[in-house]
Amino acid sequence: MPTFELGPNQYGKAEIRLVHVERTGAGDRLTDLNVSVALRGDLAASHLTGDNAAVLPTDTQKNTVYAFARQFGIAGIEAFATRLAEHFVATQPSIHEARVTIERYPWIDVDSRHCFRRSGGEVHTATVHHGHYGTQVVAGVTGLVLLKTTDSEFHGYLKDRYTTLAETRDRILATSVDATWRTATGFTDPESARAALVEAFADTYSHALQQTLFAMGSRVLDRCPDVVEVKLSLPNRHHFLVDLTPFGLDNPNEVYYAADRPYGLIEGVVRRDGATIPPEVTWTF
Amino acid sequence: MPTFELGPNQYGKAEIRLVHVERTGAGDRLTDLNVSVALRGDLAASHLTGDNAAVLPTDTQKNTVYAFARQFGIAGIEAFATRLAEHFVATQPSIHEARVTIERYPWIDVDSRHCFRRSGGEVHTATVHHGHYGTQVVAGVTGLVLLKTTDSEFHGYLKDRYTTLAETRDRILATSVDATWRTATGFTDPESARAALVEAFADTYSHALQQTLFAMGSRVLDRCPDVVEVKLSLPNRHHFLVDLTPFGLDNPNEVYYAADRPYGLIEGVVRRDGATIPPEVTWTF
Amino acid sequence: MPTFELGPNQYGKAEIRLVHVERTGAGDRLTDLNVSVALRGDLAASHLTGDNAAVLPTDTQKNTVYAFARQFGIAGIEAFATRLAEHFVATQPSIHEARVTIERYPWIDVDSRHCFRRSGGEVHTATVHHGHYGTQVVAGVTGLVLLKTTDSEFHGYLKDRYTTLAETRDRILATSVDATWRTATGFTDPESARAALVEAFADTYSHALQQTLFAMGSRVLDRCPDVVEVKLSLPNRHHFLVDLTPFGLDNPNEVYYAADRPYGLIEGVVRRDGATIPPEVTWTF
Amino acid sequence: MPTFELGPNQYGKAEIRLVHVERTGAGDRLTDLNVSVALRGDLAASHLTGDNAAVLPTDTQKNTVYAFARQFGIAGIEAFATRLAEHFVATQPSIHEARVTIERYPWIDVDSRHCFRRSGGEVHTATVHHGHYGTQVVAGVTGLVLLKTTDSEFHGYLKDRYTTLAETRDRILATSVDATWRTATGFTDPESARAALVEAFADTYSHALQQTLFAMGSRVLDRCPDVVEVKLSLPNRHHFLVDLTPFGLDNPNEVYYAADRPYGLIEGVVRRDGATIPPEVTWTF
Repeated sequence: MPTFELGPNQYGKAEIRLVHVERTGAGDRLTDLNVSVALRGDLAASHLTGDNAAVLPTDTQKNTVYAFARQFGIAGIEAFATRLAEHFVATQPSIHEARVTIERYPWIDVDSRHCFRRSGGEVHTATVHHGHYGTQVVAGVTGLVLLKTTDSEFHGYLKDRYTTLAETRDRILATSVDATWRTATGFTDPESARAALVEAFADTYSHALQQTLFAMGSRVLDRCPDVVEVKLSLPNRHHFLVDLTPFGLDNPNEVYYAADRPYGLIEGVVRRDGATIPPEVTWTF
Repeated sequence: MPTFELGPNQYGKAEIRLVHVERTGAGDRLTDLNVSVALRGDLAASHLTGDNAAVLPTDTQKNTVYAFARQFGIAGIEAFATRLAEHFVATQPSIHEARVTIERYPWIDVDSRHCFRRSGGEVHTATVHHGHYGTQVVAGVTGLVLLKTTDSEFHGYLKDRYTTLAETRDRILATSVDATWRTATGFTDPESARAALVEAFADTYSHALQQTLFAMGSRVLDRCPDVVEVKLSLPNRHHFLVDLTPFGLDNPNEVYYAADRPYGLIEGVVRRDGATIPPEVTWTF
Repeated sequence: MPTFELGPNQYGKAEIRLVHVERTGAGDRLTDLNVSVALRGDLAASHLTGDNAAVLPTDTQKNTVYAFARQFGIAGIEAFATRLAEHFVATQPSIHEARVTIERYPWIDVDSRHCFRRSGGEVHTATVHHGHYGTQVVAGVTGLVLLKTTDSEFHGYLKDRYTTLAETRDRILATSVDATWRTATGFTDPESARAALVEAFADTYSHALQQTLFAMGSRVLDRCPDVVEVKLSLPNRHHFLVDLTPFGLDNPNEVYYAADRPYGLIEGVVRRDGATIPPEVTWTF
Repeated sequence: MPTFELGPNQYGKAEIRLVHVERTGAGDRLTDLNVSVALRGDLAASHLTGDNAAVLPTDTQKNTVYAFARQFGIAGIEAFATRLAEHFVATQPSIHEARVTIERYPWIDVDSRHCFRRSGGEVHTATVHHGHYGTQVVAGVTGLVLLKTTDSEFHGYLKDRYTTLAETRDRILATSVDATWRTATGFTDPESARAALVEAFADTYSHALQQTLFAMGSRVLDRCPDVVEVKLSLPNRHHFLVDLTPFGLDNPNEVYYAADRPYGLIEGVVRRDGATIPPEVTWTF
């Protein structure tokens, strides 16, 4: 085979999901980032012969992102990206250029303490069934993303030979609410129902996402007298505390990895006592 | 072949994209919907023999959605879905049940007149390049969706043998802003840059999306003294006025179809005069 | 406001969905494309003052893509893109550069005549319910995209005051099959069920997608003796014949626009006579 | 607050990504699954009071999926789902019903040994640039997903204080190829280029994905004499070996977790020696 020339090239770790919580006395600050690193330099040997002596693993780049979040905080995405880019070039003679790209997802403070709502993405829904049973109205909201930085525990669960999960007395609880509510007659104000969902998520001290689900459904029933039934589908968007001890750092509930898959999925219906439900609109999962 | 039994079945038109503008003297009201219709009834013949005598075409269902928006307005998604569901059952003896599902995308009023911003979905970005050329910071925003209900024209363009487009003196102008700005040194306040983009989109009377693009880039340069260059990529999210004359209805810029594809795509860079750009961060499309 | 400089810029129509059928005596040839055009040139006036005298509308670019498909055929995506790019520069003095990007989606010939399957994207599924009712197995396939270039009609349907659809004796029929089948006991061979779906779609002369649905479900029941029930959800992926008469061209069922939304959605269950279905796995739409 | 009633409910772990390699003497067998578990039973306490004594954690459900893959193999998705569903009900008195849903992504054997290609999803692309520099043709393929079950190592890399990655002499190597190739004049046969990419991925014993990238680009240049330049963007789709030792099981390179994010991203250009590239089509990352 003839030999060919290596042109421009770069490598790095893409889409490192980092959630940083700054714990202040007066309410937490949440920063939600997607960090990508690309490095260039003396990388021909890795391409031509598979000699990796000049290659800083992409896994190390990921670790650096998490460690720097703990050591220096985020400040702003421009500053954090600058610190990272300069670090890789300054500390590795084989790396001559770095490009660090950060996406920041905005969140909105819900209660000035620990609860946040991700900005936007919500869709309001309504499904009307009309037939021999009359008219049945089911309205709802989907894509309502909520997160609590504390006031969530999980313990006392069943253990079997496949259980490895450690019990926790303090975790992040986050979900993307998919809710629908059925009215006996007429409509209810969707903003009231939505506000009840957010409020119950925020003020329920949670021992299980199931408990939070029931509290959210109950709050809607409590606030919206026309509603007879609320269905909730709540993915448990896991945020795992990153182990920083290999780098000589502690991690006092500050630096998290936001996982994509798998995720817990909690679904349930909360009903006004004695509600009768036409089979045509009975909800299934 | 043995015969088999038809079980539960339904059919309808899904994802009818309807944008409704209520033109009031004191600022427009915007409603952005995705409507799906499903009908059930005496539909066995269509399945067994292809006899469509009992089938109201899904195309007719779509037309009904647009005509009803003009005739009755939207009011609320529950009310609009109810009106549609009841109509199909009331007017077609072969249709016994209707299920109408509506998704509503929230928009936020920008200027109390004609300009709106779609709620959420924005992501803030920063890319830092670091190498022999020093540190170059490019920040931006993506997914910022803006819409004007008027103050947009398009005419005076080139015509050739393939041109069929009619000139317009009044159209909806909508886009999803993907913007990045480069600073000579240091960072700029992303909220100022973002606010400048929204404001220029809102207050520029537009004869071309290109003109709006240049105005948006210029506004950022004007407000953010550290910024030397702004790149914008603006898809032209077409909103087509629905022809309601077959139904005996006019359509005074009120009922629109929001198209998915194709879309115009306008891209450009606006620079501070005399700005020098390192080739490493020169932008390409 | 100070004046700023226009840097690099381009504009054009993106994602023009074109499906081309070459009608040969010995079986049709299908080409499925997504075409994007970007043009550069003397476009400063459009940006600075909104004067569009040098702007060829993106709508005209779209028309050109469809007309060229009819006039010259596709040949290959490189050749078709080259013809388009050269055309815009050659015919418009204000346009100095063109960039045409085409994506081609591969399809596989099913019957050497008129039926095609889109390559890949299929996912095989199984859902097992286990409870007091025993074990119920529901398997299926999703994302199986099929298209027939002829042997599909649609007429004889209900007409009301909102009906504008013209009857047709020859249309493209295309769908993305989402199918599940339930066995009374044990499992069935998923490849047999899948093959039955494809075969019935191909060899059923269709007067309604409902009729094709019933034929597909029946074929699975016929071929797979363990299956007692088949559920099908079939979006009607509309392919609209492009009107080329403004350009002095006919269109003998050759050049189509593949629409995204809205789409018909046909759903139904086909059952073996006398099948008894546990309520826990009864399907809902 | 009045009390309300808990209606139907379920919980479980959704979208557990499991890749199973059956290592046979005569070529490996690959099974790629997405498994979701939902459980029902005596779960009221968890909802009403946060008492989790009846809750088998979703994390345990995930562990069970991986352990069962090792203990019993997959056989078919119906059989594997049945085994899991029956296990949860049989072993946990509080769980009365289980619903296990599995999606299987098809792969195609490339070399009857260790290399596989994911079925479908590929898109063929062409971009033509036309301007004062003449006509430049860039063609390519995107979404070509390849996986090797062995013949991939990674070691000898740089280590710093943030490095925790263990060296490996045997790992799964998987990527989604995004490739483009530029011809000096005319077009090349895209099938030849595509086949060269697949073949080089399969037969290159890899010490780095960079090395595989260079081999793939070189193979295209070798097979396609008109091509002067190949650009490749290769995400490293990490497959992590699951630690089954807590369950008393070994894992001889058989049960993997397919991660979503983050991922390594390797990009590079391979050129024919002495190729001259017009700046207008010089590729950037």
